[in-house]
Amino acid sequence: MRSEKKMNIPPNLIAFLKGNDDFFIATHINPEGDALGSSLALSMALNTIGKSTVLFDQDGVPDFYRFLPGHEHIRRTCNGLQPSDFNLLLLDCNTPRRAGIEGLTFRQCAVIDHHETESDFGDVRWIEPKAAATGLMIFSLIRELGIGITKEMATNLYTAIAIDTGTFRFGNTTAEVLRVAAELAETGASPSFISASLYETWSEARFNLLRLALQTLEIRSKVAFTFVNREMFAKTGTGPEDTENFSSFPRIVKDIRISAFFREIDDDYWKVSLRSKGDINVSVIAVLFQGGGHKNAAGYFIKAPLESAKELLLTKVSELSESTLPV
Amino acid sequence: MRSEKKMNIPPNLIAFLKGNDDFFIATHINPEGDALGSSLALSMALNTIGKSTVLFDQDGVPDFYRFLPGHEHIRRTCNGLQPSDFNLLLLDCNTPRRAGIEGLTFRQCAVIDHHETESDFGDVRWIEPKAAATGLMIFSLIRELGIGITKEMATNLYTAIAIDTGTFRFGNTTAEVLRVAAELAETGASPSFISASLYETWSEARFNLLRLALQTLEIRSKVAFTFVNREMFAKTGTGPEDTENFSSFPRIVKDIRISAFFREIDDDYWKVSLRSKGDINVSVIAVLFQGGGHKNAAGYFIKAPLESAKELLLTKVSELSESTLPV
Repeated sequence: MRSEKKMNIPPNLIAFLKGNDDFFIATHINPEGDALGSSLALSMALNTIGKSTVLFDQDGVPDFYRFLPGHEHIRRTCNGLQPSDFNLLLLDCNTPRRAGIEGLTFRQCAVIDHHETESDFGDVRWIEPKAAATGLMIFSLIRELGIGITKEMATNLYTAIAIDTGTFRFGNTTAEVLRVAAELAETGASPSFISASLYETWSEARFNLLRLALQTLEIRSKVAFTFVNREMFAKTGTGPEDTENFSSFPRIVKDIRISAFFREIDDDYWKVSLRSKGDINVSVIAVLFQGGGHKNAAGYFIKAPLESAKELLLTKVSELSESTLPV
Repeated sequence: MRSEKKMNIPPNLIAFLKGNDDFFIATHINPEGDALGSSLALSMALNTIGKSTVLFDQDGVPDFYRFLPGHEHIRRTCNGLQPSDFNLLLLDCNTPRRAGIEGLTFRQCAVIDHHETESDFGDVRWIEPKAAATGLMIFSLIRELGIGITKEMATNLYTAIAIDTGTFRFGNTTAEVLRVAAELAETGASPSFISASLYETWSEARFNLLRLALQTLEIRSKVAFTFVNREMFAKTGTGPEDTENFSSFPRIVKDIRISAFFREIDDDYWKVSLRSKGDINVSVIAVLFQGGGHKNAAGYFIKAPLESAKELLLTKVSELSESTLPV
């Protein structure tokens, strides 16, 4: 009936976890739900079998993730710690640089990640590029260790999975993802509490900024342009961090292939966030402007008046449309 | 381990389905994903066991639901049909009036619905107010009938469940809901295709209408008011069906407890859609205005100038806040 696809957890990872006592759990800078939820759940699980853990993220926990159980244990510095006393568990990334811990020396290092490997870092490595979230790997791992999943662990893991699957809307949402979510809900994760915490905690000021941004919508050649300038920030009492995800909104329009959101940094200086649908690879475009990113989410900076910046982008999009763009 | 909570399907419903051959499947006016998906899936299931079905919805299938397999079989009139030759299956509503079929005479009538009953209509009745969607009931029913769920049925049922749970974000998203979704995904429903079809296929006109609606936002006593009037429909070339889900947008603001969306029908005549967060039961409010619905999603009609209608609602909200409202 339910053929749970077992993940292939490397036996040396299990041995590493069972055979050591002190772990330093680190994840990537600018952490999001998968990085944080995975780290917290694994830390809690290890604690229940008598292991000691330190949680580290250089950038700390963003405000709206402070509903995650245990988030207060995540530290931003190594002050007072001797890294060489610890075994490193690097989660949701696979190089020390991505976690801002390059130069630190640990006893042994293990990597658990669902991103393609950038390097061969780590004495113990478990990389599953097909896993929708690192949280799914941690779920399997905790099970494999024979540890009971608590409500707190479940909330962290559900959040990890929810964020990386767009709350079960992205192409990586498989039957297995939904089944794990069901098990976590059964164990005490509240889908509605988590969703509300992730998506319904905007300030009124931020909502006002979104309304202004949507008023700037212009659709040309199936590219949706929106922008926010410094005047709008001032008018609404908001800041750059309030524009997170603004680039995604115009995706709801059927004919749009790319959404390009421009945020004013200085006179004629813009940060551009690109979002695409389906097979359109916007990282190719971002690279042309010395930026980068993933297939469906990328960005770059540009010094130019807004209209010229839009024109330049449209030119690149149409050039690429004739060659590599629509993969 | 997995204690599937079996729904209690009335034996006389099973007998009704097995013992008859010709069914007239009707659902409510202004149908949405649960009404349409449930009707289509049940029709397909009955066809596979040799039953003949007619699908009816007075308002037809909105454009953006035309990805649902089989939607082209839904008819808007009874022309050329003799209702008395058929057994009625009334889905996702429980009175003929809600389906626009009052006055028609059928052989026997069965009701399958997850809304609180308004009347005792129906020779056979299956009402499960605790079910998150009628689609979940149909899923159980098809299983109980021993019919294999096809990819097409799965797509319809997944859509039904996705819509009524806010794609697994509302308070009715239980472990069981996620487990059924997993089974449907395993049977061929594509979570990402369905989500993109539901949420990323807006016309530019509809998006323009949303922008106008968001411009009307007014927040008073933690109630968010937005409206769309006939002038906005005319200006954007849109219609009432384009306002689906508009009521949900202001929910993203943290401090909002209730979102009230007013749609103008005629001079001083409005359809009001209420959405609430958490434990706030807006159906209690809707009932005070002779409307109805669920705890977090309800609605009513009101004849009054807009400002008075808003005031009236605020008065009721504040009266109830002091008594039953915040359960």
